[in-house]
Amino acid sequence: MSMRNAFYAQSGGVTAVINASAAAVIETARKHKSRIGKVYAGRNGIIGALTEDLIDTSRESSAAIAGLMHTPAGAFGSCRYQLASIDKNRAQYERLLEVFRAHDIGYFFYNGGNDSADTCLKVSQISARLGYPIVAVHVPKTVDNDLPVTDCCPGFASVAKYVAVSMREAAFDVASMAKTSTRIFVLEVMGRNAGWITAAVGLAEDETTPIPLVLLFPEIVFDETRFLALVDAKVKQYGYCCIGVSEGLKNADGALMAEAGSKDAFGHAQLGGVGPMIATLTKDRLGHKYHWAVADYLQRAARHLASKTDVEHAYAVGKAAVELALAGNNAVMPAIIRTSDKPYRWKIGVAPLDKIANVEKMLPRNYITADGFGITAKARAYLAPLIRGEDFPPFKDGMPQYVRLKNAAVPRKLASVVDYYFTPVSPYTYLGHERFLEIAARHGATIAVKPVDYGRIFPVSGGLPLKQRAPQRQAYRLIELERWSKHLGKALNVKPKFFPVPADMAARWIIAAQAGRGDADALRDDAGALRLTGALLRAVWAEERDISDEPTLAAIAAGERLDPAQLAASAASPDSAARYDALTQEAIDRRIFGAPTYVYRDEPFWGQDRLDFLDRALAK
Amino acid sequence: MSMRNAFYAQSGGVTAVINASAAAVIETARKHKSRIGKVYAGRNGIIGALTEDLIDTSRESSAAIAGLMHTPAGAFGSCRYQLASIDKNRAQYERLLEVFRAHDIGYFFYNGGNDSADTCLKVSQISARLGYPIVAVHVPKTVDNDLPVTDCCPGFASVAKYVAVSMREAAFDVASMAKTSTRIFVLEVMGRNAGWITAAVGLAEDETTPIPLVLLFPEIVFDETRFLALVDAKVKQYGYCCIGVSEGLKNADGALMAEAGSKDAFGHAQLGGVGPMIATLTKDRLGHKYHWAVADYLQRAARHLASKTDVEHAYAVGKAAVELALAGNNAVMPAIIRTSDKPYRWKIGVAPLDKIANVEKMLPRNYITADGFGITAKARAYLAPLIRGEDFPPFKDGMPQYVRLKNAAVPRKLASVVDYYFTPVSPYTYLGHERFLEIAARHGATIAVKPVDYGRIFPVSGGLPLKQRAPQRQAYRLIELERWSKHLGKALNVKPKFFPVPADMAARWIIAAQAGRGDADALRDDAGALRLTGALLRAVWAEERDISDEPTLAAIAAGERLDPAQLAASAASPDSAARYDALTQEAIDRRIFGAPTYVYRDEPFWGQDRLDFLDRALAK
Repeated sequence: MSMRNAFYAQSGGVTAVINASAAAVIETARKHKSRIGKVYAGRNGIIGALTEDLIDTSRESSAAIAGLMHTPAGAFGSCRYQLASIDKNRAQYERLLEVFRAHDIGYFFYNGGNDSADTCLKVSQISARLGYPIVAVHVPKTVDNDLPVTDCCPGFASVAKYVAVSMREAAFDVASMAKTSTRIFVLEVMGRNAGWITAAVGLAEDETTPIPLVLLFPEIVFDETRFLALVDAKVKQYGYCCIGVSEGLKNADGALMAEAGSKDAFGHAQLGGVGPMIATLTKDRLGHKYHWAVADYLQRAARHLASKTDVEHAYAVGKAAVELALAGNNAVMPAIIRTSDKPYRWKIGVAPLDKIANVEKMLPRNYITADGFGITAKARAYLAPLIRGEDFPPFKDGMPQYVRLKNAAVPRKLASVVDYYFTPVSPYTYLGHERFLEIAARHGATIAVKPVDYGRIFPVSGGLPLKQRAPQRQAYRLIELERWSKHLGKALNVKPKFFPVPADMAARWIIAAQAGRGDADALRDDAGALRLTGALLRAVWAEERDISDEPTLAAIAAGERLDPAQLAASAASPDSAARYDALTQEAIDRRIFGAPTYVYRDEPFWGQDRLDFLDRALAK
Repeated sequence: MSMRNAFYAQSGGVTAVINASAAAVIETARKHKSRIGKVYAGRNGIIGALTEDLIDTSRESSAAIAGLMHTPAGAFGSCRYQLASIDKNRAQYERLLEVFRAHDIGYFFYNGGNDSADTCLKVSQISARLGYPIVAVHVPKTVDNDLPVTDCCPGFASVAKYVAVSMREAAFDVASMAKTSTRIFVLEVMGRNAGWITAAVGLAEDETTPIPLVLLFPEIVFDETRFLALVDAKVKQYGYCCIGVSEGLKNADGALMAEAGSKDAFGHAQLGGVGPMIATLTKDRLGHKYHWAVADYLQRAARHLASKTDVEHAYAVGKAAVELALAGNNAVMPAIIRTSDKPYRWKIGVAPLDKIANVEKMLPRNYITADGFGITAKARAYLAPLIRGEDFPPFKDGMPQYVRLKNAAVPRKLASVVDYYFTPVSPYTYLGHERFLEIAARHGATIAVKPVDYGRIFPVSGGLPLKQRAPQRQAYRLIELERWSKHLGKALNVKPKFFPVPADMAARWIIAAQAGRGDADALRDDAGALRLTGALLRAVWAEERDISDEPTLAAIAAGERLDPAQLAASAASPDSAARYDALTQEAIDRRIFGAPTYVYRDEPFWGQDRLDFLDRALAK
């Protein structure tokens, strides 16, 4: 493979060490300049690729990239966004491909957890399915530690260290206060499904530092009676008790305690998380003064207390990802393979992505003590090596010095694309059509013409055909149409002679008028299709013509210098029908519900009264 | 002054560096062996002194004491307990004095905040008021930073550093997520009255690291409209907003927002703190996804992120306290005096305790920006030097190695003292009297005989004379007396002939029977007084005699080999009346409400049916 550029993006919840993986990807790529040109980072993850919002990491100094090693969170921005399958949303993949092609991107590095692995797997299929050569490699990251195959997930160990250290420190505090004040301390930690982080709280205590600890795992159904008995016994024996509780603690019905709380669980209202809820419970039932903490983002952002082992893992998987890609491995993820507990030894292996995507690795039952409230020696043997070593960031004037990158944008090569969803019988589409064309032209934006079937869209999106709407709404609609017609100086019969009429055939004529219908080309606009659309809208709303009538369609097409015979034949083909169906399904999948809807960089603008917002968005 | 021992205690909420002050006191004392013998630490603060529960710090190695420098919380235990004034509770001071005398304690070092300074001031008065030579020096400590005179309070700067670093880290996280997810992050911090910690959150941002921050100070009344407008503007400009809120945020009525919340503030129920409340508000009104954290004890226990400057301050005040005491300064506190902002320079000065006790230093208004939501350059100039420098604890296997002391107890020199509050007409006192004497004797405990006037105690403590009690309660009382009489095999007329009768004279005869009535000696028991008490109780409940009758009293006293004439004269004296009044007042102040009440180490045991608990307490 000749020299190509690489795309790197961060996905999902960020961690204290994800930037170390970013540094590894960039630094390793820089060592292979003959194979990898530039590393473009997606601004806010995959959204950066979809919107051609790329960051040129070659503009960052070596020092800045090295600084990522000790900087928490996502330096390029992350996102929570999962791609549908190629079959479900082909347009999105076509868009990705267009961006990759425009920037000669041949390597795709995606840094995330389960959902992201799934996205990376889908992107890896572009090569085979859409015939564009690209190698996609997933870089593991998640504080939840729930990816399969890999022994652990970069990001987890630093949270583990944070919660263990924090609980140890808090335990010293509570022990000091217990004589006359606080006897119960509750720390709520992350990990909604898998109890890895909860287990790590158990590391707060060891032989030299005994602490009366009770852990509440998301895997173990909450048993109030046994929990209270244990806490009571600990307080009696030690004078105090520390409780680590997962945000995902569930009751016997499988409902989250945090959500079940509002009235019924303990008989009083609750809006805080499960941490305060558990604290209140011990107070109500055992009478002890309590304190509780919810560390939330602090636990996963705490780069100042990162595990050195974690930082090393994060760097290693980033580096390996680039090396795997250079060796031509598509649809894989570098995995951390533990070869020994004592002394701790590990190496990098390779996992196929289809074994990773959407699989959650739960805490094994034998990591939890028989009573369900603690961790076993097996869990300790697993967890202990991960939190080893410190890697303090540089401090200046008492504050950690975290890097902010320049994050310079790569100049856009593609025109901006606005998806135009409408039906040719829509009055508001008519009212906005010319203004929309003017705005798009002014910004050099391309319009993807997408007539769709609101007869299918309304029933799944809470819409009603005009006649079925409430009388008040029908009346107000007329007022609105009149008002906008006057305001815009655009002639409009509020009750046209041929309305409503079936719009399917007219829509298929518009589709037929599109110059090419290759999947990628379908995104490009077509002067002919847009002219025909405008003429059809005028025909209904200003000229009292029936666009469900084929001879009328032919006359309108002819008026726009299009070949009626060719359009009629094309519109009648199964191909055209399939395209119309696919566009409608795409609109449903993208949560379109009204006409017109303009979509720019995945932001929908519903109604011609939102064109000024679209105008401003295009100006950015 | 010849060689004497020192007492050191930790008081109130602990901090990340209070043990550094402890290390300084102990190490400095060890350097003056000709003047200071041993340093005894109070187990759980002043309670350790009151209960003669002293820790012999001379049993700790130099390495262990040095280890306190990097160990958070209170190594000897703290307490929330404030002494009343000498006039109000002389007995408590007499007890302190007894313990000090028994252990030859000539130096009193008290490590705490405002309330503790008040306690220290009161102890300093023992010297002049009770004629026992002792030097009391306060060692400043409080995360609230609200002590006057001193430029700052050890403990605060480390919390300041923790909240600033945590907010900076969380801000990086939120900035990463803001595109598709969290836009608002709320961190609730400590400081109920003074906004020093809230101000320190402002250090999260500086010129090189801009962060859209909004601070909510306890000193500034919460203005919802202006707050939401500011947050909205920040989100619009930066894409996200970070909010630091004091747990002590108040509404226009001066009520704590956290408490005002339950229904009325924002229209929904709330049990969490003000942090989640503010987060929910921004969601409800501005529609942004939020996250919130409540660091609680984590912030003040986070020794892993302590400010080096803070550690140095903490050590310096501990060292200075010992030096001040050796120089004979009573009722003072070493204060940190800032001599320059840039470069930061400081020295130790001396503050008289009466200028410190119970005075709160609030955040000056000119440290808060005009809009009330940020900090000024003046605040930055004050705060910035305090968080400078890191002083990481030693880590082993990834965990900070905090010291646990042996905390060996100093052998008790004083017999245990049980205060015995009763009236000689009480049937339950009668039923328990012999068992009580047997239990006290078995444990070598001293009994302080304290007959008191329930005629004064009942009206202020919710009690009623027998005749005014509900019929059900009067009936049940008879059942109980019968039951206990049978159970104990102790003869008792449930409706004796001479009951109720005035008990004041009998009580004063008991007081007269006490050998000495010097204040300290009054705590010691007296075989004669206890014998007379037993005889009087028998007289009422088993022998149908009238103890309000002086000839009967004389006959009973004679039966116990006491001199009736001498007792009659003494009981009639104003001195005896004053003593009876003082004991009654003491009982009221100690919240005694029933007879008998046995008080051991400040723990009350009400009723002879609690003697087994007293037995167990004495066994500890």
